[in-house]
Amino acid sequence: MKAYIEMTTEERLAALEELRGQFEEEKAAGLKLDMSRGKPDATQLNLSMDMLQQNPYDLIFTRKGTDVRNYGELAGVDEAKEFFADLLGVKMENVFMGGQSSLALLYDTVMKAYVFGVYGGSKPWGKQEKCKFLCPVPGYDRHFLITQEFGIEMISIPLSETGPDMEMVKEYVENDPAVKGIWCVPKYSNPTGCTYSPETVEAFAALKPAADDFRIFWDNAYFVHCFREKDDELANIFEACRRHGSEDMVYEFLSTSKVTFSGAGVAVFIASEANVKFLTRQISVQTLGYDKINQLRHVKFFKNVEGLWEHMKKQADYLRPKFDLALAVLEDELSGFEVGRWTNPNGGYFISFDGLPGTAKRTVELCAEAGLKITPAGSCFPYGKDPEDKNIRLCPSYPSLKKLYQGMRLFCMCEKIAALETLV
Amino acid sequence: MKAYIEMTTEERLAALEELRGQFEEEKAAGLKLDMSRGKPDATQLNLSMDMLQQNPYDLIFTRKGTDVRNYGELAGVDEAKEFFADLLGVKMENVFMGGQSSLALLYDTVMKAYVFGVYGGSKPWGKQEKCKFLCPVPGYDRHFLITQEFGIEMISIPLSETGPDMEMVKEYVENDPAVKGIWCVPKYSNPTGCTYSPETVEAFAALKPAADDFRIFWDNAYFVHCFREKDDELANIFEACRRHGSEDMVYEFLSTSKVTFSGAGVAVFIASEANVKFLTRQISVQTLGYDKINQLRHVKFFKNVEGLWEHMKKQADYLRPKFDLALAVLEDELSGFEVGRWTNPNGGYFISFDGLPGTAKRTVELCAEAGLKITPAGSCFPYGKDPEDKNIRLCPSYPSLKKLYQGMRLFCMCEKIAALETLV
Repeated sequence: MKAYIEMTTEERLAALEELRGQFEEEKAAGLKLDMSRGKPDATQLNLSMDMLQQNPYDLIFTRKGTDVRNYGELAGVDEAKEFFADLLGVKMENVFMGGQSSLALLYDTVMKAYVFGVYGGSKPWGKQEKCKFLCPVPGYDRHFLITQEFGIEMISIPLSETGPDMEMVKEYVENDPAVKGIWCVPKYSNPTGCTYSPETVEAFAALKPAADDFRIFWDNAYFVHCFREKDDELANIFEACRRHGSEDMVYEFLSTSKVTFSGAGVAVFIASEANVKFLTRQISVQTLGYDKINQLRHVKFFKNVEGLWEHMKKQADYLRPKFDLALAVLEDELSGFEVGRWTNPNGGYFISFDGLPGTAKRTVELCAEAGLKITPAGSCFPYGKDPEDKNIRLCPSYPSLKKLYQGMRLFCMCEKIAALETLV
Repeated sequence: MKAYIEMTTEERLAALEELRGQFEEEKAAGLKLDMSRGKPDATQLNLSMDMLQQNPYDLIFTRKGTDVRNYGELAGVDEAKEFFADLLGVKMENVFMGGQSSLALLYDTVMKAYVFGVYGGSKPWGKQEKCKFLCPVPGYDRHFLITQEFGIEMISIPLSETGPDMEMVKEYVENDPAVKGIWCVPKYSNPTGCTYSPETVEAFAALKPAADDFRIFWDNAYFVHCFREKDDELANIFEACRRHGSEDMVYEFLSTSKVTFSGAGVAVFIASEANVKFLTRQISVQTLGYDKINQLRHVKFFKNVEGLWEHMKKQADYLRPKFDLALAVLEDELSGFEVGRWTNPNGGYFISFDGLPGTAKRTVELCAEAGLKITPAGSCFPYGKDPEDKNIRLCPSYPSLKKLYQGMRLFCMCEKIAALETLV
């Protein structure tokens, strides 16, 4: 096996021709597979069916006697607030149970900051001349879409194994009052799978923003999503903030969309008491409350935080083989050719693949041609523009192992074709 | 029995003294009752428990094979869209299933109009010099709170038995481009219980707004909430709009919060295809979708529109006696004294009471003193200000019959005291 980079042009052309022949065969085989999003598969979802089998008459009253089938308890039932407070190492007063979509909560908090301003801020974001957000890259496309929708300028920040480049973050946040926020997926980051180091978390808490209305959007989407033996450790940002007196700077988000049911779980907002109080007042204009039956259903199903971790171990047993397989195919098909590098996460839903510069779009296009839909190239960057056109997000969670094997082999084939096309 | 207005001052003082004596006794009795909101009671909620008893394995797949436990189907499952389309006499393409709170949908559509603008509008509301909303009064306090939150100026429009004063509405809407919307509860209006007449609906559809971004917020919250023999008939506004080519002017809202579970039902947005398409694009940035399990759970419970009407008949059997009792007490305690008038609705959740001018606040205060919480005076008017301080919203749905009897008698006593205090 010879790296493409070391081949002569003739060798490359020969390799390309061979691959193209194989590609035509694959196309003819008529694969039809969507690997574009980090979706759980049915076996994972089945693990939560017992939650729906609970006797509904056991899910009527909270411990303080509230009938969850009726209006009230805007911030959620105590049992749920306590559960997530325990999970995240905060107090009940820091928890607001907000519907079933953490994305909707993220959007909603951006919207409220934009229209009404944040706690302690002097002016709504939307009433200021310019607003900017820092975007660690590669990152989560749906975060970037929100800031784009509100016309907020996005600035890319390189993300390493230990988190965003904190010197750069500090430089922007502490000197530019137009910088209003930063998007973070601090654990098993989407798509690289990295977890922010304790030093990174500390550096976040130590920020002294130039703006009086700066917020860290701490989207802790994969906090309980380890699928290997050793879970990455993420420091408690609120604990760090307490030491720095910066608790009002952080909005944390979480949901059970990839714990129980996607879109039918519960979403959680965690913040300082001042922030929670401020936002609860605003939300009281918006709704009379979220689905409390579902909150109680979730808490009684898990029983306690240990129950949740046990549940996630079962999920891990379904996810791990998929990641193992995807990584094995990448290794088998690509190692030695030097056409790309990829991450090997301990949890989360993604593998981040970096090919040769200028190959990502072409790879995605070739995959589509042969019936494999993967996340559009550039998705993990603000405005959908990967400056080097090399990053691709792979989502092995949804397909069956058989389909995943076919899909990953096809992906590798397309990746190699795209690499050779750039080189010849 | 003599009307207070016809009494001499001495007679009034004597009557007042007697009532005050009774009031002190009531106070000592220590009633503790919250009648401030239109909440269903537990017996009503129990009627929907079978919905939660369904086998969850029957609630996994939609007829087209979508797994409702997973992401997807932003606008909702076909079964639910079809169900509400049937109910409201529109097409599936006009329906968007949006979470569990129609209030949240109302807020969200105002927010999107404010920040991004509406379909066909030239500019976001928030970027224009001034925005105004028409507010039929007495109306729903939470509507007014939304417009107040966004700094939208509110203009009161008198509401009669047939709906808002449409000449005044037309005058404002067709001449002032700052008028961006109107709040409507067209059937069993909150709080008067009136239903807009066919002529009113027609006049709405015929409006030619001066603004290119005017919307009618048609909050059809009580569409299926008749509790008497004869249901009021509300004309289909979209049908009327089709004749006038004004379909894009209407946003309709509905939820099952007072059909199944309050806050744990499903909420529905109905609009022209252009509006639905436009908003669906915007909502796609906000969330990956709403709780589809709950959508399927609802539709399979009702089976079809007839099933829903049957279900509502059972609810009516619980609500009707409460309204009958409340109305009987009002009649018994107040008729002849000429201290107020009240509505006698065929459906909905409220009785609107108009006392003598200047008595509403005092009545609410007296009630509170004796342990009865009722809706704050002025709630049914923009900015919480009833210009005549006479309107009170009564909500008989929640208390038991026994408690309701006590509460209503106390209310009448306080009303009479307040009336006499104004007159002496």
